[in-house]
Amino acid sequence: MAQKPSIPKGTRDFSPLEMMRRTYMFDTIRRVFRTYGYAPLETPAMENLSTLTGKYGEEGDKLLFKILNSGDFTRGFTPDDAKVIAAGTETGGAPLNAMAARICEKGLRYDLTVPFARYVVQHQAEITFPFRRYQVQPVWRADRPQKGRYREFYQCDVDVIGTRSLLCEFELVKIVERVFGDLGINVTLKLNNRKILYGIAETIGHADKMTDITVAIDKLDKIGIGNVEAELASKGIGQEAIAGLRPILELSGTNTEKLARMKEVIASSETGMLGIAEMEELFSYIAAAGSTLDIELDLSLARGLNYYTGAIFEVKAKDHAIGSICGGGRYDDLTGIFGMPGMSGVGISFGADRIYDVMLALNLFPEEAGIATRILFINFGGPEQLASLRLLQQVRDAGIPSEIYPEPAKMKKQMEYANRRGIPFVVIVGEDELASRHATVKEMHSGEQQTVPFDKLSEYMQH
Amino acid sequence: MAQKPSIPKGTRDFSPLEMMRRTYMFDTIRRVFRTYGYAPLETPAMENLSTLTGKYGEEGDKLLFKILNSGDFTRGFTPDDAKVIAAGTETGGAPLNAMAARICEKGLRYDLTVPFARYVVQHQAEITFPFRRYQVQPVWRADRPQKGRYREFYQCDVDVIGTRSLLCEFELVKIVERVFGDLGINVTLKLNNRKILYGIAETIGHADKMTDITVAIDKLDKIGIGNVEAELASKGIGQEAIAGLRPILELSGTNTEKLARMKEVIASSETGMLGIAEMEELFSYIAAAGSTLDIELDLSLARGLNYYTGAIFEVKAKDHAIGSICGGGRYDDLTGIFGMPGMSGVGISFGADRIYDVMLALNLFPEEAGIATRILFINFGGPEQLASLRLLQQVRDAGIPSEIYPEPAKMKKQMEYANRRGIPFVVIVGEDELASRHATVKEMHSGEQQTVPFDKLSEYMQH
Repeated sequence: MAQKPSIPKGTRDFSPLEMMRRTYMFDTIRRVFRTYGYAPLETPAMENLSTLTGKYGEEGDKLLFKILNSGDFTRGFTPDDAKVIAAGTETGGAPLNAMAARICEKGLRYDLTVPFARYVVQHQAEITFPFRRYQVQPVWRADRPQKGRYREFYQCDVDVIGTRSLLCEFELVKIVERVFGDLGINVTLKLNNRKILYGIAETIGHADKMTDITVAIDKLDKIGIGNVEAELASKGIGQEAIAGLRPILELSGTNTEKLARMKEVIASSETGMLGIAEMEELFSYIAAAGSTLDIELDLSLARGLNYYTGAIFEVKAKDHAIGSICGGGRYDDLTGIFGMPGMSGVGISFGADRIYDVMLALNLFPEEAGIATRILFINFGGPEQLASLRLLQQVRDAGIPSEIYPEPAKMKKQMEYANRRGIPFVVIVGEDELASRHATVKEMHSGEQQTVPFDKLSEYMQH
Repeated sequence: MAQKPSIPKGTRDFSPLEMMRRTYMFDTIRRVFRTYGYAPLETPAMENLSTLTGKYGEEGDKLLFKILNSGDFTRGFTPDDAKVIAAGTETGGAPLNAMAARICEKGLRYDLTVPFARYVVQHQAEITFPFRRYQVQPVWRADRPQKGRYREFYQCDVDVIGTRSLLCEFELVKIVERVFGDLGINVTLKLNNRKILYGIAETIGHADKMTDITVAIDKLDKIGIGNVEAELASKGIGQEAIAGLRPILELSGTNTEKLARMKEVIASSETGMLGIAEMEELFSYIAAAGSTLDIELDLSLARGLNYYTGAIFEVKAKDHAIGSICGGGRYDDLTGIFGMPGMSGVGISFGADRIYDVMLALNLFPEEAGIATRILFINFGGPEQLASLRLLQQVRDAGIPSEIYPEPAKMKKQMEYANRRGIPFVVIVGEDELASRHATVKEMHSGEQQTVPFDKLSEYMQH
C-alpha cells in the first residue's frame, strides 16, 4: 500500500523557513500596495476555458492547464469522436484541441490580468471607477520546468483601470521605488512608451509591422542587434528601414537628451509625438517628487504582450543577474475582448519567485523573518510543567510566539529541538525555579542566562 | 468577439470589501497559530492523483478535480481505448475512471491533511519532530454547489505530528478559545474520544462494527435518534445492542459526571478506559488553566473521517446556526499510507468560509476592516496638484493608505468617489490652502472640517 510520495514536476512545497521568508516578502509588497490606496481582489483558481483561450497567443493556449469535466466527461460522445481520440497521436493538433475542449470546460488561471479584465466587465455595475486593485495569487503554466521556471508560481499585480491620467504611471514608479527600497534590492527601472515605438515604425515606413518590430526589439538584450536585424528582415522589413532603426536603438545620453533627440527623429508621427509628450509629463512628476530609483528611458524596451498601448515598465536587479523581476504598462483596451471597450488602465506585476531568489542570493532576509517560535519552555513534567504552562499562557497572551516541549524528555533532547528549530530563547522552570518563583531564561546564541521573576516574564521577553 | 464573462459554478470572486474582511479573519487566525508556536507550510495546488486517490473514500474520489495531461493526452491510445470512450455514457463507472486516470496524472488538492501527510513523509529527513505546522490554502471539491457549499474554499489547518502528548490536545483547545475569542464569536467546543466510542462498540458486542456505529452516531444531530437506530439495524446490529447504546447517547450532566458514568459502563473495555483516562487528563489541564470556552463532552460526537483514533473536536457557533465551523482530532497513523507508520499527531481545521458567514451575519467585522484608503486628496490640477502630491507622499511615507483623484474632475464627482469607496477623510489643497500652507481636512462621516499645517498633516492623520 505504501507509495513513494512526490509532487508534480515544476511544483514546490514551501517549508516553514521558506514560508516565513516568503510571507515577509509578500507582506512587504502588500503593505506598500495598501499604503498607495490599492484594495485587494481575489479571483478563482479555475476560470472557464472560454475566458482564457485566445488571450495569450497560440503558445499560451498550449500552456493552459485544463480541468477534466466532472462525472461522465464523455457524455454525448459518438463513435466519430472516439476515432479522433484513437487517432490522437497521428493527427494531433486541431482535432486533439477540439477534443480537449469537449472534455474540459475549465482551466487554471494563466496570469492575473485576464481574470482582472473578466472581473471588471462582470462586476462593472458594482465597481467605483477609477478602480484600484492589487492581487497576489498563484498562476499555473504547463511550461517545461527548468531552473527558476515553475508550473505554479505567484504574481503580485497592481492596476488602476478607468482613467488615462499619467499620475497613475507616476504612482507605479513610486510603488516600484518603495517595494524594492523596503526589500533592500537595488534596481534599475527601465521605461519606454509603445506610442514612441509606433512612431518609430511609422517613421521608417512600416506602421503595419509595429508588432513584428516590437517583438524583435524586445529581444535586443538577449540576442543582440545583429539577430534582431535578421529577424526584422525575415518579417519583410527592408534594409533601408532596418538601417533607419539602428541609430534609434543605439541612442545614448540622459533621459532628457534621449527624449529631445527622439522628438526630432519621429517629428512626423503624431502618435509618436503623443508618446514623447506622455513621457515628458511622467518624467516631470518624477523630477518634482525626486526619486532614489535609477530610472532609464530605454527605447529598446518593448515587452512581449501586445495589449500595451502607452508607457511600459521593466525592473531589473542591479546586483544579481536573473532577468526582469517586475514589469507592466498602460493598456487602452484590456476589457474590449469581454465586450467593454475603451477602459484605459495601467498596471505592473511583481515576479515573486524571482524576487525571492534575488533576496536569497543577496542575503536580504532579516534574521527575524526566519524565526517562528521565540521561546521554548523546557518540560520537566509534574508541578514544574503546570507552572510552565501558566507562564506559557502569560507570554502567549502578550503575543510572543512560544511553546512547551510536549513531553518531559531528556534535557539534551529538548535543547537540541530548540537548536534545530532556531528558537532563540529557552525558559527553564525546574525545582529551584518553582521554589523561588523565578524562571531561568537562556539566550541560545550567546548561552547567557538570566533569572526573571514569574510575573515579569512577558515584560522581560518583550525587550 | 465579445463574450459575456462568467466564472465556473461553485467558485467566487472576492471583491475588495470581501477581501479586506477575509484578510482580517485570516490574519487573526494566522496570528494565533504563530503565537502558539506553529510555523507556516504551503503545498502545491496540484498533487499527483496517486497521492489523492483512495484517501477520501469512493465518494471523495469522485469529487477530485483532475487535470488533463499537457500535450498529446491520448498518447499511446489504441482503438480499444477509443471504444471505451465512445461507449462512455452506457458503460460509465470503472472503464471511465480508468480512462480518466490515463489522461490525467494530476488533481487539485481536496484537503490540507493528505498533502500534509505526504509532505511529512517526503521531507522526513529535514523535519524536526514534533513538527508543528499551520497551513491556510484553498481546496477544491467537485461537489454539487449549493448555499454555503463551494467548489473552491479555504481551510486553515493547524497540526502537530510526532508526539502522543495530550498537551497538544490542550493547546488546540486554547487555540480554539483564542481564535474565536479574538474574532468575537461565541462558540461551544464539543469533545469526544474515538477510544471511548470503540469501548462502547466493544461493550455492546460489536467491536467489529466500530465504523458503522460511529458513522451512524455522527448523524445524531441531523437525523435524530430514531433514524440513527434504524441505520444501525440496517448494518446488522441487533436490537439488544442498539438498546444498550441508547442510555449512553442520552447521557447528561457535567463533563465530570459523564466521564464518571461512562467509566462504569465501559469498565470491561481496555481501549475504552484508555479513552476515559485521556479525557480526564485533558480536562485536568483545562481545569488548571481555566477557560472562557463552553466545553462539552458529547458522546454522540463521532466525526466522519476514519483516521481519528483519540480525542475529537467540533466547534459550533452559539448565535448563528450553520453547522460545524471547526473540527479535528488525534490520528495515530496518518502517514502510514505513504510508508511511514506510527507517527501520531493531532490537528484541527477552521472552516474559513463558514466562519466568514457567521461573522457577517452577526456583524462582527470591525468597521476598520472595510476601509482600504483612509485619505483622498482632491485634485485641482496645476500647482495645487503638485502641492497635494507632496503631501500625499508625506502621509504615504507615514504608512497611511491614501491616494489622489487622478484627474482634476469636478469637486462633486471626486467627493462622490470618496463616498462610494468609503474613504473616511478628504484633504483639500485649493488656492487658499496653497497660499496659507494649511490643508483642509474633511471628515466625511460627520462633515466636520479642520485646518492643518502642511508639515503636520501625517501627524494629525495618525491620531
